[in-house]
Amino acid sequence: MHTFRLWAPLPKTVEVSLAGQKSVPMTRVAGGWWTVTSAAEPGCEYGFILDGGPPLPDPRSQFQPHGIHGLSQLVDHNRFHWTDKGWQAPPLSSAIIYELHIGTFTPAGRFLSAIEKLDHLVKLGVTHVELMPVTEFSGHHNWGYDGVDLFAPHHAYGSSNDLKKLVDACHARGLAVILDVVYNHLGPTGNYLARYAPYFTTRYAPTWGAAINYDGAGSDEVRRFFCDNALMWLRDYHFDGLRLDAVHAIFDSSAVHFLEQLKCEVERLETELGRHFVLIPESDLNDPRLLRSREQGGYQLDAQWSDDFHHALHSVLTGERNGYYSDFGGLSDLAGALRHAFVYAGKYSPHRQRVHGRSTEGLSGHRFLGYLQNHDQIGNRAKGERSARLMSLGRLKIGAALVLMSPFVPMIFQGEEWGASTPFIFFTDHQEPELAGAVRAGRCQEFAAFGWKPEEVPDPQARETFDRSKLAWGEISQAPHAEILEWYQKLIRLRHAEPDLTDGCMGDVQIRFDEQKHWLTLKRGAIRLACNLSAQPQAVPLIAEQGTETSDRTVHLPPDCVCIFKHGIQVA
Amino acid sequence: MHTFRLWAPLPKTVEVSLAGQKSVPMTRVAGGWWTVTSAAEPGCEYGFILDGGPPLPDPRSQFQPHGIHGLSQLVDHNRFHWTDKGWQAPPLSSAIIYELHIGTFTPAGRFLSAIEKLDHLVKLGVTHVELMPVTEFSGHHNWGYDGVDLFAPHHAYGSSNDLKKLVDACHARGLAVILDVVYNHLGPTGNYLARYAPYFTTRYAPTWGAAINYDGAGSDEVRRFFCDNALMWLRDYHFDGLRLDAVHAIFDSSAVHFLEQLKCEVERLETELGRHFVLIPESDLNDPRLLRSREQGGYQLDAQWSDDFHHALHSVLTGERNGYYSDFGGLSDLAGALRHAFVYAGKYSPHRQRVHGRSTEGLSGHRFLGYLQNHDQIGNRAKGERSARLMSLGRLKIGAALVLMSPFVPMIFQGEEWGASTPFIFFTDHQEPELAGAVRAGRCQEFAAFGWKPEEVPDPQARETFDRSKLAWGEISQAPHAEILEWYQKLIRLRHAEPDLTDGCMGDVQIRFDEQKHWLTLKRGAIRLACNLSAQPQAVPLIAEQGTETSDRTVHLPPDCVCIFKHGIQVA
Repeated sequence: MHTFRLWAPLPKTVEVSLAGQKSVPMTRVAGGWWTVTSAAEPGCEYGFILDGGPPLPDPRSQFQPHGIHGLSQLVDHNRFHWTDKGWQAPPLSSAIIYELHIGTFTPAGRFLSAIEKLDHLVKLGVTHVELMPVTEFSGHHNWGYDGVDLFAPHHAYGSSNDLKKLVDACHARGLAVILDVVYNHLGPTGNYLARYAPYFTTRYAPTWGAAINYDGAGSDEVRRFFCDNALMWLRDYHFDGLRLDAVHAIFDSSAVHFLEQLKCEVERLETELGRHFVLIPESDLNDPRLLRSREQGGYQLDAQWSDDFHHALHSVLTGERNGYYSDFGGLSDLAGALRHAFVYAGKYSPHRQRVHGRSTEGLSGHRFLGYLQNHDQIGNRAKGERSARLMSLGRLKIGAALVLMSPFVPMIFQGEEWGASTPFIFFTDHQEPELAGAVRAGRCQEFAAFGWKPEEVPDPQARETFDRSKLAWGEISQAPHAEILEWYQKLIRLRHAEPDLTDGCMGDVQIRFDEQKHWLTLKRGAIRLACNLSAQPQAVPLIAEQGTETSDRTVHLPPDCVCIFKHGIQVA
Repeated sequence: MHTFRLWAPLPKTVEVSLAGQKSVPMTRVAGGWWTVTSAAEPGCEYGFILDGGPPLPDPRSQFQPHGIHGLSQLVDHNRFHWTDKGWQAPPLSSAIIYELHIGTFTPAGRFLSAIEKLDHLVKLGVTHVELMPVTEFSGHHNWGYDGVDLFAPHHAYGSSNDLKKLVDACHARGLAVILDVVYNHLGPTGNYLARYAPYFTTRYAPTWGAAINYDGAGSDEVRRFFCDNALMWLRDYHFDGLRLDAVHAIFDSSAVHFLEQLKCEVERLETELGRHFVLIPESDLNDPRLLRSREQGGYQLDAQWSDDFHHALHSVLTGERNGYYSDFGGLSDLAGALRHAFVYAGKYSPHRQRVHGRSTEGLSGHRFLGYLQNHDQIGNRAKGERSARLMSLGRLKIGAALVLMSPFVPMIFQGEEWGASTPFIFFTDHQEPELAGAVRAGRCQEFAAFGWKPEEVPDPQARETFDRSKLAWGEISQAPHAEILEWYQKLIRLRHAEPDLTDGCMGDVQIRFDEQKHWLTLKRGAIRLACNLSAQPQAVPLIAEQGTETSDRTVHLPPDCVCIFKHGIQVA
């Protein structure tokens, strides 16, 4: 027997339709909810019939074996045999995060095949795996941001149990696991939520899809839906935290912002389960309110992605100045990012054409993720080129060194550690020809602004685009990949070994640079780094050990070269 | 000579057109600004010609002698002879605010005619006059929320100098003056701002008009426009503060909210001028962030309108339960409002169909304005009936007593003090027939939902509707008006005399009530109030002087009656 419960204030009648059985009317109860108890077991497939229409997927479907338009499947979360009793995730302060996309991380592109590569991550020194969104989206492959069944792992990645096996296998190896969840919009097809209830609003007009109704009539249950989603991943799938996609597109004028409520509910689950969870928003707001304590009027989230640091670093290393990189490019921006996380903290942004951001004063570097690359920064390029394609080997090493010696929580994107030759291109697999065409055209239009011809932009709908984005693990032992991997391993070992590197103290990061000569030198406690970004060999002064104004030593560096010292001894 | 300056990034050419002269091209300078120095003196009329079009009013026009579509007029603010040197406004903590509408406050409906009635306000015990918006709107009469030339006092009210004379005359009598300003939308006609610059955005879809661009490209100058507007009223017109209309319709996702910026800029002006200013938002958010300190992540505004208290009081006194009054009605709501300002502070609101608001803990009652009536609560009724029309004389007195014995800053709406017989109806004077018709139809449609037939709803465009809304000062000495006036005077005298009433301590307000028997009794220090809201005479227990559980005295009250005691002696 199973009790179906459904929030659906909009339809006048609701039936549950069990595959191969006569549909059963549900009973309306308080608050727009419906309920019925029926002879259904885990594994049963079902849909909801609203006002006599066709069976639709459950908004809280736990699994969609036939995709976004098909029936939902019951899952019993109590049947999985967990082996991670007593598991505690390492703290963010000592974390190295590894972002991966299930579909392209391994050739098979499944939850279970990912397990085979976990030992590589352990050997690399990673502490946290971050999965790009895994919820049911349209078609066979997708980055994941087109999810529409937000409680269901995608059927092409494996079963609900397979995902649990992956998390369990991570925990068995000491790896924490973070899941990327999208609470700002739903995908463009397969989204049936609006037929059930006021999940969406026209009060706000964000970039993608309809805005979610976080503050209008009926929003309590909408917020419940998303909070319950978060709690499910943490409780039933044993995830150690969530990455919250693009929270700047969550519009909520309530006196208690949805993100504050979410954090409070996650804290209650922490108390209940005796575990610790992290919430890591991606935010374009440069607003420390996301991180500040509730006493300071903040939402108290654990850490946020630090795009300013990425942009500052990327533009210095590549010389790129188009699009949002036009706001960056100087070594002073990079130095500012390393010391304050936000380069734009109340300063005019030419790209945004307005003053942007606010000071991070008092916040630890542990509250920011630092990265040379991530899925967006690679994949939002027309051709999905990684940093390894865009800069010399020397500069790639400089980039890795600055991320891994930074006061931030370092994050690596799958394959970055060996400078993977494969791109990570934007790919979709929409089944509706009209939508497929619109996505294709939109992609071409987006890059036309940067001078790309339509035929130069990979077709996001082509299977080849997806296949090309898969990691080529065979190359890992070849040149120059083996050398890059060794460099990453060395830097990560150093970070784990040196407490000065993980103290999170942005204010204590000492930096000197010469914008003209294009060198930069940095000191964090006993660790000193010097890099030469010019095309000429030159002497770079190390910052003095004792904090005096003058440097006590100068290192001669060839072009595009970085060295790291501890107490005067070169360690990398 | 005058230097014209204009922010207009959109047009390709701009000329200044001086009445009776050849137009002069302006020079483009940095940031989308234009400038030219020309032979123009205060009093000159001019417009701006964008891309060769017709002359348009200056977005920052100081005066519009011919209305919203006409030329702008130069005003020299340094020419007025102020007599209020050394003026300091009384603090909000001891304030009694009087809201008035220039067009209907006096028969002549002008700034200068209002001066004639100031002595009445002084005698009444008012400390602050609050003017409904006075900026240039379409036609001859309007509540003021259709303003489009936000730097220009409306020409039908008098000149810029006349407004200064009114403020000066208030100060001469010890009265502070607050101006109602509208920073959430512009009126439906005469708004030329969008031709000049990106003042508006489609990212948000508020109820009225286009949303103002507080956070997109170009928003720095938009924010500058509104901040400069606020600073102008405080600096050049000597206003003592601003009432900020409907700040819930100001959408701003910037890391520094516009309201926080505004408050900071006003604080800088305070330092510069050595005066104190207040910012008083109207807000539908029940969000204490507006009031909390910047250390607490708040915007640190001085006080906000307290609609929950109004609704709780109004619904108890009238028995009305339609529209938003459906969320109120119990004496428990009224008691909650008196002790916490927000009845909805994290509680489910049936009318809003969602949880609403957040706790005001730690905030003083001085941070909230309390009122039995205001322009909206009267005028947003189909027929604009005042409380005096809706309840018995006894209940009117109870309402006044609860406002004036409350921990809030009491506010009175013009004529309330004598229970004016005149209504305050929604009126407009739009000149475009289509707009006039739409406003008429919209009004009828709004009230159709409450069962009103179109012919029962006064025509907002009819001159008669405006004329009927003017105060009838002749009735002030007649029954029952003289008795009501005497009651208000007595209560205000008592409030000014008793520090216990103005201590702002919501937590110290002791209240007992009986929902069935319909009595309520309240104690604030030495002051005790008892009221009988039932149709039967009954004994009402006073709260004991020494804070014991049992009452030390019972008063027998006729129906709809209130008594106030100090140390056992009846004082009102």
